[in-house]
Amino acid sequence: MEKNSSPASRSFASDNNAGVHPGVLEAIARANQGHVVAYGDDDYTRSAIKKFEEHFGPDIAVFFTFNGTGANVLGLQSLTRPYHSVLCSDYAHIYVDECGAPEKHTGCKLIPLPHRDGKITLDSVREAYHGIGDQHHSQPRVISITQATEMGTVYKPEEIQALARFAHEHDMFLHVDGARIANAAVSLGQNLRQSTRDLGVDVLSFGGTKNGIMGGEAVVFFRQELSRDFLFLRKQSMQLASKMRFIAAQFEALLTGDLWRKSAEHANRMARLLEKEVSRIPRVKIVWQVDANGVFAQIPKPAIEKIKQQYFFYTWMEEESIVRWMCSFDTTEEDVRSFAEVVAKAVNA
Amino acid sequence: MEKNSSPASRSFASDNNAGVHPGVLEAIARANQGHVVAYGDDDYTRSAIKKFEEHFGPDIAVFFTFNGTGANVLGLQSLTRPYHSVLCSDYAHIYVDECGAPEKHTGCKLIPLPHRDGKITLDSVREAYHGIGDQHHSQPRVISITQATEMGTVYKPEEIQALARFAHEHDMFLHVDGARIANAAVSLGQNLRQSTRDLGVDVLSFGGTKNGIMGGEAVVFFRQELSRDFLFLRKQSMQLASKMRFIAAQFEALLTGDLWRKSAEHANRMARLLEKEVSRIPRVKIVWQVDANGVFAQIPKPAIEKIKQQYFFYTWMEEESIVRWMCSFDTTEEDVRSFAEVVAKAVNA
Amino acid sequence: MEKNSSPASRSFASDNNAGVHPGVLEAIARANQGHVVAYGDDDYTRSAIKKFEEHFGPDIAVFFTFNGTGANVLGLQSLTRPYHSVLCSDYAHIYVDECGAPEKHTGCKLIPLPHRDGKITLDSVREAYHGIGDQHHSQPRVISITQATEMGTVYKPEEIQALARFAHEHDMFLHVDGARIANAAVSLGQNLRQSTRDLGVDVLSFGGTKNGIMGGEAVVFFRQELSRDFLFLRKQSMQLASKMRFIAAQFEALLTGDLWRKSAEHANRMARLLEKEVSRIPRVKIVWQVDANGVFAQIPKPAIEKIKQQYFFYTWMEEESIVRWMCSFDTTEEDVRSFAEVVAKAVNA
Amino acid sequence: MEKNSSPASRSFASDNNAGVHPGVLEAIARANQGHVVAYGDDDYTRSAIKKFEEHFGPDIAVFFTFNGTGANVLGLQSLTRPYHSVLCSDYAHIYVDECGAPEKHTGCKLIPLPHRDGKITLDSVREAYHGIGDQHHSQPRVISITQATEMGTVYKPEEIQALARFAHEHDMFLHVDGARIANAAVSLGQNLRQSTRDLGVDVLSFGGTKNGIMGGEAVVFFRQELSRDFLFLRKQSMQLASKMRFIAAQFEALLTGDLWRKSAEHANRMARLLEKEVSRIPRVKIVWQVDANGVFAQIPKPAIEKIKQQYFFYTWMEEESIVRWMCSFDTTEEDVRSFAEVVAKAVNA
Repeated sequence: MEKNSSPASRSFASDNNAGVHPGVLEAIARANQGHVVAYGDDDYTRSAIKKFEEHFGPDIAVFFTFNGTGANVLGLQSLTRPYHSVLCSDYAHIYVDECGAPEKHTGCKLIPLPHRDGKITLDSVREAYHGIGDQHHSQPRVISITQATEMGTVYKPEEIQALARFAHEHDMFLHVDGARIANAAVSLGQNLRQSTRDLGVDVLSFGGTKNGIMGGEAVVFFRQELSRDFLFLRKQSMQLASKMRFIAAQFEALLTGDLWRKSAEHANRMARLLEKEVSRIPRVKIVWQVDANGVFAQIPKPAIEKIKQQYFFYTWMEEESIVRWMCSFDTTEEDVRSFAEVVAKAVNA
Repeated sequence: MEKNSSPASRSFASDNNAGVHPGVLEAIARANQGHVVAYGDDDYTRSAIKKFEEHFGPDIAVFFTFNGTGANVLGLQSLTRPYHSVLCSDYAHIYVDECGAPEKHTGCKLIPLPHRDGKITLDSVREAYHGIGDQHHSQPRVISITQATEMGTVYKPEEIQALARFAHEHDMFLHVDGARIANAAVSLGQNLRQSTRDLGVDVLSFGGTKNGIMGGEAVVFFRQELSRDFLFLRKQSMQLASKMRFIAAQFEALLTGDLWRKSAEHANRMARLLEKEVSRIPRVKIVWQVDANGVFAQIPKPAIEKIKQQYFFYTWMEEESIVRWMCSFDTTEEDVRSFAEVVAKAVNA
Repeated sequence: MEKNSSPASRSFASDNNAGVHPGVLEAIARANQGHVVAYGDDDYTRSAIKKFEEHFGPDIAVFFTFNGTGANVLGLQSLTRPYHSVLCSDYAHIYVDECGAPEKHTGCKLIPLPHRDGKITLDSVREAYHGIGDQHHSQPRVISITQATEMGTVYKPEEIQALARFAHEHDMFLHVDGARIANAAVSLGQNLRQSTRDLGVDVLSFGGTKNGIMGGEAVVFFRQELSRDFLFLRKQSMQLASKMRFIAAQFEALLTGDLWRKSAEHANRMARLLEKEVSRIPRVKIVWQVDANGVFAQIPKPAIEKIKQQYFFYTWMEEESIVRWMCSFDTTEEDVRSFAEVVAKAVNA
Repeated sequence: MEKNSSPASRSFASDNNAGVHPGVLEAIARANQGHVVAYGDDDYTRSAIKKFEEHFGPDIAVFFTFNGTGANVLGLQSLTRPYHSVLCSDYAHIYVDECGAPEKHTGCKLIPLPHRDGKITLDSVREAYHGIGDQHHSQPRVISITQATEMGTVYKPEEIQALARFAHEHDMFLHVDGARIANAAVSLGQNLRQSTRDLGVDVLSFGGTKNGIMGGEAVVFFRQELSRDFLFLRKQSMQLASKMRFIAAQFEALLTGDLWRKSAEHANRMARLLEKEVSRIPRVKIVWQVDANGVFAQIPKPAIEKIKQQYFFYTWMEEESIVRWMCSFDTTEEDVRSFAEVVAKAVNA
């Protein structure tokens, strides 16, 4: 993934290139009153956790971290000892985009499985599940999936249920990297609980940053006993914020009045619009189904360079000439149309 | 350190119980314009780094992290391999308050040295420097000091110079946990460069959170070659912010127009006022010199309980009945006087 | 890999199921005289190291470890920092048979490459070499190959040279897991130096255990500067023997009077004999070229079970019904013929 | 600890400078028959484990490792997660002589406690047991003692019982580094079980190397459930021997016909003789009670240098001019007398 500086004020590079939703920024400002105890022992944090309980049901355990890598690593560390392995897509963020953080911090091996449209299949999990009880082999302990996936697709409920069932039947856990769980839930027409806990997910990295907050993720345990060590693991992993109230306030805002849903719905809709616009351009091929807020297109190599003179974005697969375009809570229809025109011009040049 | 909930709107519990300086909050809001590239490749970050260069001189390398533990661990990891040891005070934050993060992440041993008024002495370093070249012993590689110290005192320039000299003569580095470096510099009447780089410091954790920003620290390398691996170490250590501009904007605000200095000066002044006020109370004994923004007092045990009914703060040394009271950028004279009255009443009861 | 108890006194399960060569046992007994300084500072160790220098040339650095996993992990740790990655075959011992030891101890990611007949190709290395300088990606630092391979084949000199050249042109190192380097050298008609150092290998795990010693491996650095930290890394990694002389004496015996070569030659010859014998059996298919001391055969599943009633050995690939049969320094022609008869009977049943 | 080469054939440097007891060497040779399955799934290993059960009682779990550091680290790792701490003497082998292996591999913090005659006291443990439940603090999980201690003294049964009781009352475990447990048991007039399991010890590093075997230690769990992960932890920690039978055979020999006891008794007796002989020399002061096989003496500095011209040994405490002299299974009365003469001559010179 190369990068350029971009002259555009709103790009399609990533949903984390967007700023902060105004409602979230206001919530931060509102939380800036007087002193409160640090490290999460404050009313803002307690209130935000209650919001999670409203959405996901009681008997959960919720903890805030600084970022998605922190949430993923800590979720996995809660479920493993160093001789375990984690089964995931060979395109999973935890496998390719975290600079080896999961291996370094958990000591575990990550086993890359082939993906189909960004998803791992029960068959590939079954094949990777072997060497059980053999002291020479890392022992499979977690299936980790990304929802929505790194290819912009969304696992169907029955796909997740099948993976959860297999995990639980084999003394494993199902972990979800939900950096874009909001986009996925919206895509499925489900609420947050339906799209995670009710499908058998054990631990969820609940993404905020890519859905319009300034920074922060949450690790949500649907079985509280799995979180027993979490406070210590989080501190030791450098993921404990002192002025926690300001992360909490952001999540409070996100989970109040459907903001999480509205922002995700909007981003998804913009992606579908973008898909529609660029689909018309000859020699632009949409490569994966646009389930969430990302559009992945195969376009001629020279066109890529041309577009990048005006917009920064990532080439997702160099050789196949596949690029990724992401929409955010703040993407406008005009943004989409202007961009599609630039693409059309570049491709047709 | 026990903790209670506090009815007071501004406490003396910690400088990280304070909120965000209004100027910092405004800077965050101003940075919320359009899209920018994530992970630090943006103009806000470049501009903030330039501010650091204005203060510390050119030829430095600066990186932002989420929090102080992250800054400390990453600074130390840049200087060490796992068989090294780090010499520090037995009361150092890295030794007692980071839940073993430095050991876990660097693999190194931390060697606790006795402190005098919160400071380690050249003599204690000299004594701990042994076993060199012996394969059975962790090899001393870093001297790490906290400035201002955990006891509210401030190393004198010549004390730091002596430690730096010893470090460099023995193939070691001098690391400074500067969670309160601003308070220390102000206390010494020095600027940021004079109080660190010019004294021989190699790597500095530059604290922002305790000086009025929302969250974020910076690792500053005064020898650029030591930072060669830093980008990768930071990502792998889960300390890379995607929306980096919002951390950068905070530091930009802090380092502009003397905000760092004014805030620290104010906090220090409030601490001296608090010292003065409580010194008058019989049976209240100030135990360490009030060099920076903390007052450490020995008071009768029953009084502690009584005061805690109104104010949350930390008992620093249980047996000795020593408590810690910290002042912040937002502490007012009235806060101090009201608190001193409560203390007086409790002690005299 | 399942395992059964075996009624046979000499099996074809593994070259580490064999015992100790009588000459090695005698060397151990001879070293049992009086007291000598522990941890390697003794004449036995110095003498054994000289033997290595005779074979590999001067200007090397040699260190003994307890076992192959220890040698591999320490060799890799000497070459890496935790954000690096190691490129290796997806069937490499370090990847599948060390229970995640390399990841746990080095913190690095191991990148599995597809193998052809047990070997990785320059093309697959080239493809895996990407994301250079991108902070999100583990940075490729080492190419690690196994010689002889896990499939009983042997890299040709020019194949190793090509990998070494690519490594060095890209700021990487070439590491060789030489658990069976003796068998490989013999197979190539080369001496130890020709088959490693002269081909561009940087660090070698020199195997002893599978070539008739009781226990012990050596890490051989062909560039001494890479071993600077080794003494400390070895101790910290629990691989430092106190009564080192008894490991040293074994290597002294192995490297004296061509014992290493004779034992390996014999084992290789027995493997070729076994290949010849079983090739005659219908429905037994030799799957990889028998370059060293292992024969890999595809045989009917029911036959596998039948043979295992008399001989313990490993099914190498369950689904493909491929088994592995290894020969050792002590395998006799009669052993081979008796075994081949049992195989024939089982297959024909 | 400096070291010289020694002209003496038997020194008093360390019990690991001795060689192998002839009975152990014979056992190794006897085990060298035919092929057996590797990695511990063999009759020699099963038989040796039975010997442990005879000595320590049933319902234990026993595993062999290569060395003492491996045994200690693996025992501790079985009991901890990385946010835990281990309380031990500031002179404990795990604290000062393992190059940071426990910290690196377990991720835990080791808390050094002051020792009295090599022993930690219940009071010092009590004082170090704090910060429970506080997320900023490593959580105490293990008390680790060395028996016999690094100062040649032996904990009394009631001292161990008191530590075990405190540990168990506070959700901690008692770990014993028993590198010289045989010498301690003999000193106490107890058998192996009485001196460990019956006192409340949870996990024992059972030392063999310093009691006359060639190399190998055993981790003995007195509560089997604590060892559930051990096979995997051992492999991942590079402590799994392939030709396990040769370690097992050594322990079989050690635990048969009272060899462990006879060797330890002899070494202890020689230490008492040495104490007696050197006590007569003016200006030689025995500093700790000679409970086991080590004599620690304070002697004039120039004498140390003189003796070291003929005998290699360790200066235990440089400044205090305290040296350590160890006796082994093979130390003779004549060795002791010759050495004492050399000491006398050196001191009187």
